[in-house]
Amino acid sequence: MSASEAQPSADGRPRVIVVGGGFAGLTAVKALRDSAARILLIDRRNHHVFQPLLYQVATALLPSGDVGAPIREVLRHQPNTVVAMAEATGVDPERRHLVAWHPDRGEGPIPYDYLVLATGVEQSYFGHDEFAPFAPGLKSLEDAQAVRSKLLRAYETAETEEDPSKHRDLLTVVLVGAGPTGVELAAAIASMARVTLKSNFRRIDPSATRIILLDNGPRILAGFAETLSRTAHERLTKLGVEVRTHAHVDDVDEQGVVVAGERIASRTVLWTAGVRPSPAGQWLKADTDRAGRVAVGPDLSVPRSPEVFVVGDTAHLEQDGKSLPGVAQVAMQQGRYVGRLIANRLAGRPAPPPFRYSDRGNMAVIGRGFAILESGKVRLSGFPAWAAWASIHLAYLPQARNRPEVLIRWLRSYVTGELDSRVILGGLHPPYEKRPEAAAAKASTAAPTGRQG
Amino acid sequence: MSASEAQPSADGRPRVIVVGGGFAGLTAVKALRDSAARILLIDRRNHHVFQPLLYQVATALLPSGDVGAPIREVLRHQPNTVVAMAEATGVDPERRHLVAWHPDRGEGPIPYDYLVLATGVEQSYFGHDEFAPFAPGLKSLEDAQAVRSKLLRAYETAETEEDPSKHRDLLTVVLVGAGPTGVELAAAIASMARVTLKSNFRRIDPSATRIILLDNGPRILAGFAETLSRTAHERLTKLGVEVRTHAHVDDVDEQGVVVAGERIASRTVLWTAGVRPSPAGQWLKADTDRAGRVAVGPDLSVPRSPEVFVVGDTAHLEQDGKSLPGVAQVAMQQGRYVGRLIANRLAGRPAPPPFRYSDRGNMAVIGRGFAILESGKVRLSGFPAWAAWASIHLAYLPQARNRPEVLIRWLRSYVTGELDSRVILGGLHPPYEKRPEAAAAKASTAAPTGRQG
Repeated sequence: MSASEAQPSADGRPRVIVVGGGFAGLTAVKALRDSAARILLIDRRNHHVFQPLLYQVATALLPSGDVGAPIREVLRHQPNTVVAMAEATGVDPERRHLVAWHPDRGEGPIPYDYLVLATGVEQSYFGHDEFAPFAPGLKSLEDAQAVRSKLLRAYETAETEEDPSKHRDLLTVVLVGAGPTGVELAAAIASMARVTLKSNFRRIDPSATRIILLDNGPRILAGFAETLSRTAHERLTKLGVEVRTHAHVDDVDEQGVVVAGERIASRTVLWTAGVRPSPAGQWLKADTDRAGRVAVGPDLSVPRSPEVFVVGDTAHLEQDGKSLPGVAQVAMQQGRYVGRLIANRLAGRPAPPPFRYSDRGNMAVIGRGFAILESGKVRLSGFPAWAAWASIHLAYLPQARNRPEVLIRWLRSYVTGELDSRVILGGLHPPYEKRPEAAAAKASTAAPTGRQG
Repeated sequence: MSASEAQPSADGRPRVIVVGGGFAGLTAVKALRDSAARILLIDRRNHHVFQPLLYQVATALLPSGDVGAPIREVLRHQPNTVVAMAEATGVDPERRHLVAWHPDRGEGPIPYDYLVLATGVEQSYFGHDEFAPFAPGLKSLEDAQAVRSKLLRAYETAETEEDPSKHRDLLTVVLVGAGPTGVELAAAIASMARVTLKSNFRRIDPSATRIILLDNGPRILAGFAETLSRTAHERLTKLGVEVRTHAHVDDVDEQGVVVAGERIASRTVLWTAGVRPSPAGQWLKADTDRAGRVAVGPDLSVPRSPEVFVVGDTAHLEQDGKSLPGVAQVAMQQGRYVGRLIANRLAGRPAPPPFRYSDRGNMAVIGRGFAILESGKVRLSGFPAWAAWASIHLAYLPQARNRPEVLIRWLRSYVTGELDSRVILGGLHPPYEKRPEAAAAKASTAAPTGRQG
């Protein structure tokens, strides 16, 4: 990236750089559509990931293309925006430039008049990065494909194993973390094992798959009302998922997990536990909360840098004494707010009142045709909640034209249990200790940097 | 794999091992459905690849799940068949066992009464394996995803490049080999560049993409009648593809290709030229043709091993003085023939007459809604040929339930040019010389072995 990357054209229009094409960044850019700004949106991927459906890629229900939308396709009718696939690596707030890296052009500064950082979060292993090679997380489409292959591969390995006593360990899936992702994933794996894979195997019985969902805390889905969390717990139990709360994971290795001293043998451990924010706080040398999220002001700007905004999961803001949660709704509302604020400022209109999050509710799917939903005082569970979930998620799909296909896949899976994306990519895996990444993982379990490629 | 892998059950039913879940192997297994055999189907992947549509995965039209069907799902209602994801590495025809390798269980023999080798072909660089890292082929779904990412990545790189003089090299695509795959791919890339990517970019004009299709021979699509080959050539020219025949490729590197002394700068070189057979001939120490395909007898068995059959692309058989081509039709007819032959033998029925290939015709798609077709004396081109192509390929899709979705995607792409699988996996690539595989490629451009993982 060269220094003039986002140079204003001869017309001298103000330059807005938005970093990150997630819910927050994309919404901010859209809100600037009719503004006088020249916008540069930078993301290290070419696609927006519709996170709420990522678990459906991991469980073979949806293809990647329904959940990942090319950012430049989403913004094709917004001519004031250039989309660049590159990686932000730093900010110089005094000189007002972002530092970005591109494999062909190396690292370089890009000047801005306004900067919106929507750099999100990545998987966190709570200081145990050595767990990562054995327990993939679920943050990207690559992750989702890896989880899908890992899940399906275990059945393939078991089927080639004649000794039935060895089948049990191979058919044990452990999920660490019972937030929405862990719960949705556990339930979807249960459906896959009990319904989809039926009559596919001769030596093993996939319906005997043991699925264990672990959580540190006293109950699953801590973000939901207690009654719904209980409903979800019962539903999971009915689907054959063993739920264990107050379960602290001491160790994860190739053989499985150690929970409160007890070893659970498993070839398929999935990490759905924690996140850590992007290094935006370090770039800005700004005040952060304990997790590292940037403490923003009431207009989501960074103290002492009124032209820099941080939105979405990587921002910390309190409302009514509580920290706003890292969910899509907050990200979208914050992105829209900042987009409008900048547009107003450029147009000489008055600034909007301080940001205020309006919570529309919370949902989670628990297996085929079952969801829980809370919105205001409403608590709903079962099929009606699933129908509401389905309509809302269809409406928010990043590419509207995919709706018919996604709906067909959902309904078919609901009725027949069929899952069509069951391709294992990468063929036969050598055992862990013989893989190139094993050596690499041993060499560097170093602290994460901003560049994850 | 242990020695007893395919041990007959106490009932002593004859053991048939089929290696390879492509067109030939899968058809052979299906033809044995009602036989008394116990069948073991071994493949190093979990899915059958519907090769004729692979180029549509590479050009973002179809998701992998529509083109790759889990083998065990295809055979779920065939209880006499065990499917194992493992890799064949050798045969001992005297002791009648196959040698197979599994990452968890290592290498081991598996006894058979009948063996069907349907191990296919892989990409060949005609003795220039050093071209491989710069010019991916198109033989697997992994290849298709890699080609798709390579194609789309070039546009992303160009868009971050300010200097317009550098855009030209980035937007040059070279395809080496003008057989059906090269032609179909070149035309699909042309549609993608001229229609789909429109209004997606601000600095570059994707419709200016230069697409060059090279072939060694005097004309493209040498397998077709000369009139159709000429029609195809004209159509490609109309789509803006530069076709060059008598074009010998001397070199391929990171900067592009050298053709008859002339260097063409290109960041996107694709290899659609040649194939080489699997090492089945070496395993059997059998007579092969110059390419290495096993010379089989009139019943497709291997001389001196009447219980071993070789079918599909890795077999060599002449009919009416001409060698049978390596196409899906031959593979399917041979698979069916051998399946029936074994079933007859097991049932004590007379052997069928010698194998005879019945050529139903030949087709290739050249861009949206245009195909060429020959069958007997019929020669067809344009939309009618495309409609015939579409019906036949829908009918042969490995998973019938995907038909509505595939049809919708075809029609939508025909009408609007939309392509929905435009996700680049793997994020930002470091430059070639910094990638781990670059070092690996340098270290070993050794001859291929049976184990490609």
